[in-house]
Amino acid sequence: MANSRFGYVREFEDYDRLLPSTFSVVRIDGQSFHRFSDTHQFAKPNDKRALECMNSAAQFVMEEMEDVTLAFGESDEFSFLLRPDTPLYDRRKAKILTKVVSAFTSAFVYNWSRYLNIPLAYPPVFDGRVVTYPLPKHVRDYFAWRQVDTHINNLYNTSFWAIVQQGGKTEREAHKILQGTVSAQKHDILYKDYGINYNTLDEMYKKGSVLVRDPPPLPEVPKDGAYKEKKRIEKLRKDGIDGTRGSVQILHVDIIKDDFWNQRPWLLAQ
Amino acid sequence: MANSRFGYVREFEDYDRLLPSTFSVVRIDGQSFHRFSDTHQFAKPNDKRALECMNSAAQFVMEEMEDVTLAFGESDEFSFLLRPDTPLYDRRKAKILTKVVSAFTSAFVYNWSRYLNIPLAYPPVFDGRVVTYPLPKHVRDYFAWRQVDTHINNLYNTSFWAIVQQGGKTEREAHKILQGTVSAQKHDILYKDYGINYNTLDEMYKKGSVLVRDPPPLPEVPKDGAYKEKKRIEKLRKDGIDGTRGSVQILHVDIIKDDFWNQRPWLLAQ
Amino acid sequence: MANSRFGYVREFEDYDRLLPSTFSVVRIDGQSFHRFSDTHQFAKPNDKRALECMNSAAQFVMEEMEDVTLAFGESDEFSFLLRPDTPLYDRRKAKILTKVVSAFTSAFVYNWSRYLNIPLAYPPVFDGRVVTYPLPKHVRDYFAWRQVDTHINNLYNTSFWAIVQQGGKTEREAHKILQGTVSAQKHDILYKDYGINYNTLDEMYKKGSVLVRDPPPLPEVPKDGAYKEKKRIEKLRKDGIDGTRGSVQILHVDIIKDDFWNQRPWLLAQ
Amino acid sequence: MANSRFGYVREFEDYDRLLPSTFSVVRIDGQSFHRFSDTHQFAKPNDKRALECMNSAAQFVMEEMEDVTLAFGESDEFSFLLRPDTPLYDRRKAKILTKVVSAFTSAFVYNWSRYLNIPLAYPPVFDGRVVTYPLPKHVRDYFAWRQVDTHINNLYNTSFWAIVQQGGKTEREAHKILQGTVSAQKHDILYKDYGINYNTLDEMYKKGSVLVRDPPPLPEVPKDGAYKEKKRIEKLRKDGIDGTRGSVQILHVDIIKDDFWNQRPWLLAQ
Repeated sequence: MANSRFGYVREFEDYDRLLPSTFSVVRIDGQSFHRFSDTHQFAKPNDKRALECMNSAAQFVMEEMEDVTLAFGESDEFSFLLRPDTPLYDRRKAKILTKVVSAFTSAFVYNWSRYLNIPLAYPPVFDGRVVTYPLPKHVRDYFAWRQVDTHINNLYNTSFWAIVQQGGKTEREAHKILQGTVSAQKHDILYKDYGINYNTLDEMYKKGSVLVRDPPPLPEVPKDGAYKEKKRIEKLRKDGIDGTRGSVQILHVDIIKDDFWNQRPWLLAQ
Repeated sequence: MANSRFGYVREFEDYDRLLPSTFSVVRIDGQSFHRFSDTHQFAKPNDKRALECMNSAAQFVMEEMEDVTLAFGESDEFSFLLRPDTPLYDRRKAKILTKVVSAFTSAFVYNWSRYLNIPLAYPPVFDGRVVTYPLPKHVRDYFAWRQVDTHINNLYNTSFWAIVQQGGKTEREAHKILQGTVSAQKHDILYKDYGINYNTLDEMYKKGSVLVRDPPPLPEVPKDGAYKEKKRIEKLRKDGIDGTRGSVQILHVDIIKDDFWNQRPWLLAQ
Repeated sequence: MANSRFGYVREFEDYDRLLPSTFSVVRIDGQSFHRFSDTHQFAKPNDKRALECMNSAAQFVMEEMEDVTLAFGESDEFSFLLRPDTPLYDRRKAKILTKVVSAFTSAFVYNWSRYLNIPLAYPPVFDGRVVTYPLPKHVRDYFAWRQVDTHINNLYNTSFWAIVQQGGKTEREAHKILQGTVSAQKHDILYKDYGINYNTLDEMYKKGSVLVRDPPPLPEVPKDGAYKEKKRIEKLRKDGIDGTRGSVQILHVDIIKDDFWNQRPWLLAQ
Repeated sequence: MANSRFGYVREFEDYDRLLPSTFSVVRIDGQSFHRFSDTHQFAKPNDKRALECMNSAAQFVMEEMEDVTLAFGESDEFSFLLRPDTPLYDRRKAKILTKVVSAFTSAFVYNWSRYLNIPLAYPPVFDGRVVTYPLPKHVRDYFAWRQVDTHINNLYNTSFWAIVQQGGKTEREAHKILQGTVSAQKHDILYKDYGINYNTLDEMYKKGSVLVRDPPPLPEVPKDGAYKEKKRIEKLRKDGIDGTRGSVQILHVDIIKDDFWNQRPWLLAQ
């Protein structure tokens, strides 16, 4: 930037950095997406095309920012995990946060017409925040929190819209019917009243979308002894099998239990 | 959000707020826009269509966020002034910052094809930061800083590309010719060597783009006395003539001198 | 500090700075001073010696830190104003805050025996916070807030202890008598029931303690012309008559109205 | 606090909290202690009485704040570890930081005459900072960093003052003699030139001072079976053997190697 006697105004900028060696999660949320989904006639309770457009935007974020190792999305929100040692922008909070939000927004609009055949009526807006977590346990619980939320919301919404769309009730009546019901009762209503077996619904609706990179598989173990091989695999892991390379996969799987994380130890490495 | 035993992870979120009664400026910058402008064959030194697309995105931000009272843009950057008493999002920094960045990005991509007839090759990304300024003087100096920057960069770039495009020199040679020259010398080179009168160039290139709202004019003064009228106009100013309503205007004017600010006292009201 | 492979831990330190050109107020409060005043048999409702010991500690802070231009104390609290352009510790919040708190605490313990003839039973502890204010108006209102608090508390406490000490009531009864009374009623109770004219009480109890520096008086105007004299006085003001030099005065005056501030324009200069 | 129309100034206060589940270290440093040690004729290179007075102040901090589980001091500095789940002051940074600094300062002045027979010439001042560490490893490395610093400084200072005091050299000459020497060379100078066996010096000088609580010993295992006993000991550990109770011990031991930490697993529990 050109210098001038006005340049002193730069001094007012703060320089907030993410705590070193700490996991960070950026979560973005759609603004006024109730109106947005009405305007664009989204299917209820889930619009497959809109969710896939969201996923495509999250995939772009991960391709742009290799230090994002995991993303999880549901409805109009998406969460992104940054590895704890990311040196991105010298760990400046505002820069990292805005890059994720801007990249996501940009790709969502850019990809829209690939997924939905209704024209985009106006530019959608997302907001974001960044939260830091000191321990792997917190990261696990953060993503569990979001997936439990997905499950609870989807069961409710599926029941609600069945009552309205198939049962011919008003939205007010549907709310009343569901008030105070527990999970088992909603399953019952769905199955007995509307013939819907919740368990057979699209996994994307029930579990949300999980984006991870698939690191290339480890090569065959050579014949000539354990020590050298150990070193070779160590080097391979260091070079490429680290969760920041490999192509992005979109999964719809459980991330509350251990399996998902045990299969991808790099996600929680600190 | 649905409650669960994982909900404690919300406790890790901080709650950084903008200092009350303080001006805030959000500045966004294009990421890797050198590559972006090459990919989309932007005209040098200025691409009128791209600048107008930037302006349209800034206009969308102001229409979405009435507490943004002023915007200034040049090249691949834009600055937005928020009035010091904005209650938006309880003044949470991250929310305000990301809303501006997301709205800008979204509108830029959304409006692209209205301004440029080359397809957008990939989603562009912007980053952003927010800075707080306690006094009107600082706000004046911030925007002066950016407009001086506009002038210095544009004079340099105009000279540089004249030497390259009209003079047939390499970029390296052009840099060398301009090294150490002051403004007057660049004006001379432009005029004598390439017949370009810098002062007649497009104001948008020389001064950047200034977005403000034009508040509706004050109504005629009624006949029945001074006191009531004073009250009436006070109320009008309070109700509508406050820089947060009225349609957004795109100007290319000096914002370093006093005139611009004297005509819009609400911009610096605190 | 000596270097070692452990030195990386310094990276975790943040670097929070006070916003430039902004007033800062550090306020300290005694911890568990109810117990402290009981242990040391403080007179009720005010202990002159303890207040003077507080004042002496505040005076030490101002002598140690010339960028503190004003202090105000009541009961077990003290507030310190830092001039908006202080370069102290590169404006690092934690360093400025802790220096004030430590200097105050240190002087309070150091000076104790000069003011009170009861031995200090244990080390007293204070906590502190720092708040930034963008405008002179906020600084005025901050100190007005504290002085109004002084007045309200002192009127209550004076009435309360008169009822207990002179009226022979229990503390519970005194609370009940005062519940819901306004100022005028408390004045009445004091005067009619206990012969106390509130207005004649010690100003220190009613207004708190105000510490400022008395800049040296401007010298006589010399005979040889206005311009040179203006320059001379300007230089004097710049050199010494600026509220950061001169000896510290302890006053018990109104700081809610304009007079105090008009007489000391440097306090609110920005 | 009494309410008034000025009470809005409270809104300007921020509310910075320590990240949950994260270790915090408060470090305090003496201000201008070179002058302070000269004024009070401290013995060189170490003044046993002054160090013991520092230790007594740190002990007071630990007795006042049970969530401080460990302290380490050398020269004019002291570091305090807070357990990661401390709920103190709702984890507000400024309050925690200032309480430690104030309590330390207060006790240092209060205890002075118990340790030194020269009167305190003026109130000493300390500043402080607080740093957060996500992992036990960082806590270990932080304290290792300080103890390595102790060792390096003490070896240098011991050599330096031997050369000056016993060798009759000037301070400038002593600096020159030590310039570029490694540890072994300083040991040699001490032993050969001045008959000082560094290894036999007071452990407090070489290792600094380590303050921890000694939890009460676990009681005998009762005869009636493993399960109940396990529960009983678990409860005991939960109730009392947790590093926040028990009397404070002042040790001068190695805290770089594993032993110290292995014997006190509660220090790094998270």
